[in-house]
Amino acid sequence: MSNIPQPGRNHESAIDRLVSLLSRLPGIGKKSAGRMVYYILDGDPAYARLLAGELEMLHQAIRRCSVCGSFTEADPCPVCADSGRDHSLICVVERPQDVRIIEESREFRGVFHVLGGLIAPLDGIGPDKLRIGDLLSRVRRGGIRELILAFNPTVEGDTTALYLQKLLKDLEVEVSRLASGLPVGGDLEYTDKLTLSRSFRGRIKL
Amino acid sequence: MSNIPQPGRNHESAIDRLVSLLSRLPGIGKKSAGRMVYYILDGDPAYARLLAGELEMLHQAIRRCSVCGSFTEADPCPVCADSGRDHSLICVVERPQDVRIIEESREFRGVFHVLGGLIAPLDGIGPDKLRIGDLLSRVRRGGIRELILAFNPTVEGDTTALYLQKLLKDLEVEVSRLASGLPVGGDLEYTDKLTLSRSFRGRIKL
Repeated sequence: MSNIPQPGRNHESAIDRLVSLLSRLPGIGKKSAGRMVYYILDGDPAYARLLAGELEMLHQAIRRCSVCGSFTEADPCPVCADSGRDHSLICVVERPQDVRIIEESREFRGVFHVLGGLIAPLDGIGPDKLRIGDLLSRVRRGGIRELILAFNPTVEGDTTALYLQKLLKDLEVEVSRLASGLPVGGDLEYTDKLTLSRSFRGRIKL
Repeated sequence: MSNIPQPGRNHESAIDRLVSLLSRLPGIGKKSAGRMVYYILDGDPAYARLLAGELEMLHQAIRRCSVCGSFTEADPCPVCADSGRDHSLICVVERPQDVRIIEESREFRGVFHVLGGLIAPLDGIGPDKLRIGDLLSRVRRGGIRELILAFNPTVEGDTTALYLQKLLKDLEVEVSRLASGLPVGGDLEYTDKLTLSRSFRGRIKL
């Protein structure tokens, strides 16, 4: 990176580089990234250092829970390690962030299983790419009363639910899915807590 | 920060801390911050380290230009140091990010002066808090043909333009203001380049 001013052109500065990096984040365009950088520049350097420090150690601090597959600092994760929770009830989700969303609703007192995706043949994601084998092992090990499938109500969510339902039908476990109430085609992440709470209570046995 | 899992409560993890830090940024709520953190976690650790590195050195790398007051790595900034630009034409702006926005439009070939705010008596911002003295010195040093006031078309922008107009009326300098075309009550930052370009050409002599 050259520090020589380039007449007649914008030079690539530390600001440009940070704007460019930040605008890779989901939902962040060049203008939002610019506003973020100038906010940071206008503010206390301690904030920038704190943010840098957390980013620097993020991947080292966070691993996958060997039981449920969600992101965690300790293995097993605090949810899996919590004897006060109902370990006979597993909520099966697509992504680690779904665990966070459901935990924030404080509606669910069981444990989780993160599939790491949904079956999407057009995107080349088959059942073999998901943590379905681990889920079967957990069920076969016994003591599991019910699996609640908490997928987004999309084609991929429906396909994955159907696939799991067939796979599990000979095993001694109930399989249910979150009730609709989630708007079809929508995203779990943008559901308000009340709607999420209702969809837990009204879950439909498959 | 305790690493002991707290039954029945969300523990404060590296993820929570980063979400909390990111949600301080302008326009970023808890949900957007959450999406950003999971995007980073899902991605290449090299990206997180790159971002951390840029944030870590941002305040060290960037200073204020001693001439125009905008953010820069070299002092004077590449714009002020560029002999190919018209140094008799100064565009006066509120904030350093306005320099970036105007530079990106490639409409303006003069130099800049950052006031560091606008006069806003209700917020306790008087002329003494702005870089108005520096601006007067630049004009008195001579060789300045015109000042273009590129403030947002808001009450504060109008007040500041009026104040500068009175202050400068005995000096040998033309004072103009960006033409409307900018929607009244709007923000320079969200103006498209074409509108910005037109407002430069149609600027009104005060």
